Amino acid sequence: MVLEKKFAIYKERVNQYVETLLPLASNSEPKNLYEPIRYAMEGNGKRLRPILLLITCDALNGRFETALPAAAAVELMHNYTLVHDDIMDHDTMRRGRPTVHHKWDADIALLSGDGLLTLSYRSLLRTQSPNLQRAAQVFTDGLIELCEGQCHDHDFEHDDSVTMAQYLHMIRQKTARFFSICTEMGALLAGAPDAKVSLVRQFGESLGLAFQIQDDLFDITVSQAVLGKDFGSDVKRRKRTFLYVYTMARGNPAQRDALQQIFRKAESTDTEVRLAQQIFSDAGALAGAETALREHLQKARECLQRLEPAVDTAELHAFVEMILKRKS
Amino acid sequence: MVLEKKFAIYKERVNQYVETLLPLASNSEPKNLYEPIRYAMEGNGKRLRPILLLITCDALNGRFETALPAAAAVELMHNYTLVHDDIMDHDTMRRGRPTVHHKWDADIALLSGDGLLTLSYRSLLRTQSPNLQRAAQVFTDGLIELCEGQCHDHDFEHDDSVTMAQYLHMIRQKTARFFSICTEMGALLAGAPDAKVSLVRQFGESLGLAFQIQDDLFDITVSQAVLGKDFGSDVKRRKRTFLYVYTMARGNPAQRDALQQIFRKAESTDTEVRLAQQIFSDAGALAGAETALREHLQKARECLQRLEPAVDTAELHAFVEMILKRKS
Repeated sequence: MVLEKKFAIYKERVNQYVETLLPLASNSEPKNLYEPIRYAMEGNGKRLRPILLLITCDALNGRFETALPAAAAVELMHNYTLVHDDIMDHDTMRRGRPTVHHKWDADIALLSGDGLLTLSYRSLLRTQSPNLQRAAQVFTDGLIELCEGQCHDHDFEHDDSVTMAQYLHMIRQKTARFFSICTEMGALLAGAPDAKVSLVRQFGESLGLAFQIQDDLFDITVSQAVLGKDFGSDVKRRKRTFLYVYTMARGNPAQRDALQQIFRKAESTDTEVRLAQQIFSDAGALAGAETALREHLQKARECLQRLEPAVDTAELHAFVEMILKRKS
Repeated sequence: MVLEKKFAIYKERVNQYVETLLPLASNSEPKNLYEPIRYAMEGNGKRLRPILLLITCDALNGRFETALPAAAAVELMHNYTLVHDDIMDHDTMRRGRPTVHHKWDADIALLSGDGLLTLSYRSLLRTQSPNLQRAAQVFTDGLIELCEGQCHDHDFEHDDSVTMAQYLHMIRQKTARFFSICTEMGALLAGAPDAKVSLVRQFGESLGLAFQIQDDLFDITVSQAVLGKDFGSDVKRRKRTFLYVYTMARGNPAQRDALQQIFRKAESTDTEVRLAQQIFSDAGALAGAETALREHLQKARECLQRLEPAVDTAELHAFVEMILKRKS
């Protein structure tokens, strides 16, 4: 309970810091750049990534003020990826609101995504630390991997034969790499020794893998109203999620055929989305995802245990629990 | 002549350095990210911006090796802006070849532009200099201004009433800011004192303003074959160039009416493009642009004179001459 309050305070501090990077709200010219940027940042985001960065820095005895610009940077970077990914995915809803390219247009979304990315560097470069250069390299190399992962994700939409290994490589580059960017930067800005930096990086990666598999599950187990996204958007967008690759690897021939027929069509009706969900369930993909999710969480917890008792990992454990219990 | 050879060597060194930032050509996975990135960088670009950065550093007694990663960074950043601007402008040709979004598609161009931008930071962050943080801040703040300028440029396409002041503000944020990023970073990485940094920044800005006005002129004075662009693309894209704003401010009522009629249509025929060009000429916009161009070049040269004789500005003067004599 106390930790939840702390996370809420951190979230608020990140939001406040982001404001300092933007022109004054009353004078945000040009409007077609700063209005969509503010809109993207105002969505009811959970600020998970900056909180993870900040509590990692905390755990390794770093200073909050040293890590705050980097925390704001990862949140800005996260929102840049959302705005650009939504263009590529043709998604119209995000967190219960129209996406930027849907509310404005693709050109404005393109440019405001670029603006968010640039502002994330503006934030990061305010960091006062002898480890700034190394932290910024982790941030940048991670971002290049995110681009690679996004490219694979996009390519996969036209590829029936995506394997579980390819899927895992892709989410390792996208979601998992992003979580490990946060933990690694938090540790570097705390001035932690290499061995600890390495352990929290592995922790972030395992946590990120669990997070993505959970996200894949949400698309069919959580209602549209809670997610604030289009109904069954993963199926409609031909996303090769854990559920898809599991079913194609482990389902029976009838299940695989039926799923492939749905995925080969140009568009899906809601009935076909529900049919795909039924196939995932029948093929054991939901249970398989639950198992994989727990395995990755277990690995994450093991990384923390290897840091104990020298490091107080209570907040990081609480963060894992929060991820596990999230509803959207 | 000797300087031209030196510029050619610098261009080659920049190209070689860019290669070190990419995966090996034989193993550039994912292909839909790295092929368009290589394609964008392989176009017959003149590498003006990195050369300007390197010779500014030279002039202020900095080390070439210190400035090289930043030089590669500005070239990568330049190509990122071209790839994304071409999407927004719906341009199909660039340097005589199909644009990235035309050769692949808008999604791939979006992502490879993001990749180019990120690689530019990868390059910049390899810089070994106590002034890296400040140089990276100049780079980043400049990039945000470029985004603002691009937003204005895009907004102007739907705005009949753009004034000369608005036009100058826009090109100051786009082209001129980019040139001053190069000169300012070159000076910072040379460890130059603030007064000199300020002078070369002003030099870069004036040179950039001249460069953009020259570019506006090229759209109607240079043949399509030389430019490698679509014929009369500024008119077709409703760009509020120097020629347009000059004509709307100084042309007679008949000229302004005729021009506005062309610009208010959804599309222009080649005949209309030629008519617009004739109007620009009749209204004195070509002569006006020539005068403005020479005034900005004169200001640029005055900045150099204020650095002399303490600073050897021969290469920077030669660079100005090269800009003035360029054919595309």
